[in-house]
Amino acid sequence: MKTGTQTLLIINPKDNVGIVPQTAGIQAGTILNGGIEVKEFVPMGHKIALADLPAGTPVVRYGHVIGYARTPIYKGSWVGEHQLVLPPPPPLGEIQYSPAKTNPLPPLEGFSFDGYRNKDGSVGTKNMLGITTSVQCVAGVTNYVVDKIRTELLPKYPNVDDVEALNHNYGCGIAIDAPTAVIPIRTIRNIALNPNFGGEVMVIGLGCEKLRPEKLVSSNHKDASILYLQDDAFEGFDNIIGEIMQTADLHLQRLNERRRTNCPASALTVGMQCGGSDDFSGITGNPVAGFAADLIVRAGGTVFFSEVTEVRDAIQQLVARAESKEVADALKAEMDWYDNYLQLHSVDRSANTTPGNKAGGLSNIIEKALGSVVKSGSSPITAVVGPGERAQKPGLNFVATPASDFVCGTLQVAAGMNVHVFITGRGTPYGLRSVPVIKVSSNSRLAGRWFDLIDFNAGPIAEGSQTIEDMGWELFHLILDVASGKRKIATDTLGLFNDLTLFNPGPLT
Amino acid sequence: MKTGTQTLLIINPKDNVGIVPQTAGIQAGTILNGGIEVKEFVPMGHKIALADLPAGTPVVRYGHVIGYARTPIYKGSWVGEHQLVLPPPPPLGEIQYSPAKTNPLPPLEGFSFDGYRNKDGSVGTKNMLGITTSVQCVAGVTNYVVDKIRTELLPKYPNVDDVEALNHNYGCGIAIDAPTAVIPIRTIRNIALNPNFGGEVMVIGLGCEKLRPEKLVSSNHKDASILYLQDDAFEGFDNIIGEIMQTADLHLQRLNERRRTNCPASALTVGMQCGGSDDFSGITGNPVAGFAADLIVRAGGTVFFSEVTEVRDAIQQLVARAESKEVADALKAEMDWYDNYLQLHSVDRSANTTPGNKAGGLSNIIEKALGSVVKSGSSPITAVVGPGERAQKPGLNFVATPASDFVCGTLQVAAGMNVHVFITGRGTPYGLRSVPVIKVSSNSRLAGRWFDLIDFNAGPIAEGSQTIEDMGWELFHLILDVASGKRKIATDTLGLFNDLTLFNPGPLT
Repeated sequence: MKTGTQTLLIINPKDNVGIVPQTAGIQAGTILNGGIEVKEFVPMGHKIALADLPAGTPVVRYGHVIGYARTPIYKGSWVGEHQLVLPPPPPLGEIQYSPAKTNPLPPLEGFSFDGYRNKDGSVGTKNMLGITTSVQCVAGVTNYVVDKIRTELLPKYPNVDDVEALNHNYGCGIAIDAPTAVIPIRTIRNIALNPNFGGEVMVIGLGCEKLRPEKLVSSNHKDASILYLQDDAFEGFDNIIGEIMQTADLHLQRLNERRRTNCPASALTVGMQCGGSDDFSGITGNPVAGFAADLIVRAGGTVFFSEVTEVRDAIQQLVARAESKEVADALKAEMDWYDNYLQLHSVDRSANTTPGNKAGGLSNIIEKALGSVVKSGSSPITAVVGPGERAQKPGLNFVATPASDFVCGTLQVAAGMNVHVFITGRGTPYGLRSVPVIKVSSNSRLAGRWFDLIDFNAGPIAEGSQTIEDMGWELFHLILDVASGKRKIATDTLGLFNDLTLFNPGPLT
Repeated sequence: MKTGTQTLLIINPKDNVGIVPQTAGIQAGTILNGGIEVKEFVPMGHKIALADLPAGTPVVRYGHVIGYARTPIYKGSWVGEHQLVLPPPPPLGEIQYSPAKTNPLPPLEGFSFDGYRNKDGSVGTKNMLGITTSVQCVAGVTNYVVDKIRTELLPKYPNVDDVEALNHNYGCGIAIDAPTAVIPIRTIRNIALNPNFGGEVMVIGLGCEKLRPEKLVSSNHKDASILYLQDDAFEGFDNIIGEIMQTADLHLQRLNERRRTNCPASALTVGMQCGGSDDFSGITGNPVAGFAADLIVRAGGTVFFSEVTEVRDAIQQLVARAESKEVADALKAEMDWYDNYLQLHSVDRSANTTPGNKAGGLSNIIEKALGSVVKSGSSPITAVVGPGERAQKPGLNFVATPASDFVCGTLQVAAGMNVHVFITGRGTPYGLRSVPVIKVSSNSRLAGRWFDLIDFNAGPIAEGSQTIEDMGWELFHLILDVASGKRKIATDTLGLFNDLTLFNPGPLT
């Protein structure tokens, strides 16, 4: 596409809107390449009508209908949120499984990274002690003891990167028999099994909580430890802390024996997520992530994409990409579950878009979804992972999660990701302690302003100075370097970490 | 009541069960004072039948029916959870307001504490900088900056006790237009107005979140500050942090001017809560707390009690204690709201009791509720405060909250408490950074084992060596000392703090 201040980005030949790529927006009266006169000022990332669109006309972007003109929209005018009528989501019952005819992507060989091999076959990209908690009551103690471990024990174990208290708000004051309780419980259990914790499971419980700590440890974890603060044997706080320190020491000794070894790229499990998206996310950052996702899948690795409400409107595309009818049915089942969950609370998927999305040019959830799903690349979907479950199959996995960045990230940690790719247009300082988060900027303005918070800038694609393919390869190499511990990401350098956040669809009691 | 290893605790003459007070339990074959032969071993805190109870007989404790015998229960045998049929909760529609005839409690004068007076008339018991957040995205940054403030700025301001990042999981990835969104939003706003934050409101927002930071600041807070991390003016992380530090410095300068002055006990706002309860909670800790509650109310102060599911079964008692029909209706409305909330999720109030409650002798939610409500004392209920609202009226307030310790505590912080009294039988290390938490043990066994985690032991009441009245006065004096900063509580000494936890009854998106 020809670049210049007077050219719009047009993604698909069917589109009847184009996107403003210029940082300063486009002024009223500007004559665009192609002769369209812009009727009013339109900011960066927003849409301009390429033709007169009478009321009721489908407005098309990415080759898909993103809404219908509420009133007549004239050629050259700004097409915003209020000009679009949002249609209902595709009815799940009517979507048949007719797989898209695609040529399989050729295998990709010869790429590797240096990771920590685990007994269960997974590979870690960090070497961390994770301290699981069964209930929030113990969080004051786990925070205290993690500081103490970091100061007093970690210096003895130079091969261990860090220690993390896996605190959460679940475990008591909740309905443990609620039909949805399975979600937070398996999430806590599977977080402890994330490859970066090296198979060392250490649980701190209180004693009287509803969520029994034993439920968090599977029987094949012989080295797992459980401590209860209410244990009759403990005499006072120092005694409790001393006992926890001793137990942590045993786990740290074993973790300290781990060494990085060369592992094929097939051992990558990369969680793709976007947050604080703008209109460029779907044009720059997400396609780059999608290209890298395909490379990982071609190499035999695993890729996660998630965020049910952000793909709900693209369900037809997803079903066509399902590897089998079982996968197609599982996709529809997760969408259906979420439709019902939202309806129970008297809202729908339109509650998703944020003021920042809208300010960035994303008019509604359909437009957001079409841009969001791009980060999954073009591979067939090989598996669907329920919220809190651990992924079992290589290839492209749909990990069903809410779109909330932290809840999605937490569920991807539980599903087993060892590298996280996070695409943002508006900017967020999002970071996790347990898994490296590569932050991709969708536009150069953000990457410039947040030069020390962004790891990878996909903005040059909008400017025409780089291709999706080249940047996709670049991101793939960055993923391998981060997985190897050779490149440190911004949030690790600065020490910015968000808390893990469980998805508890059930009630408090 | 006569004490001895062969005497049970019997609370009310109507009771047909007695409680085992002995730490070691009572052995089978023991002949009790009064001639009953104990049929089987019964542990501490559990119930023994005082008579033969044919199937269907009401089982009575605290003078109230706590369930019906499922099968015949013989005199001297253990009355456990499985022997009791739980009746449905009192139907709210059938409860009429007929106020109990009670003599008003005499006013209490001459008691005071040294607190920090605020412009709005409230009085702080600590002098803290609270940093409000509009969305979880900023939590990595607020945690970072709070550490930096503590190290670099607090030494300059010796009159300021501490700084706290008021992080939470709300603000985005949620349905901001859901009918219940009002609850978390007003909670965040009112937490910032807790008397211990001295009226200094400092908000850190991201910029693109659904919850607009401006919504968290009322127009009469002229000194409030709001920073957005996405602000175009910021160039990189150091610049962001520098700006936050400067803003914090301004707030700290003003907080540092605050001094403790003598304030009447009427300025106390004490939140009563129990957690990790056992069967002694309702006999020792809760009655002591209730006695102290009455003293505070008599002194013109404010007392909160909460935990909807734990008082639901005692609603008839509460309605009878309502100061007016409006208060009675508001009580019933909060119970009704919660009944519906639980029903929406296919559970009911019986989801409340925990394994620890049961192990401690509390067989079901009715028994727990009858013991729980005792901590409210005997005053009339003067007001009902919705979840997240700020209390406006002195006297005994029912602050409607879930029973989850942290959610209840957080909502009591939002309601304006300046001292927290937390009664526990099983033991929890619960602590809050912003408001002092006095931890009351219901039994001497816990107080002995956790000698440095418990602030007040109500156990001697079960042993007959102390009266509720004497210990109630003692707790009242402790509350005044803690409010004055003269007595440091265990969690402040040890540095154990749980996170605040919002009540968001709405969905994630």
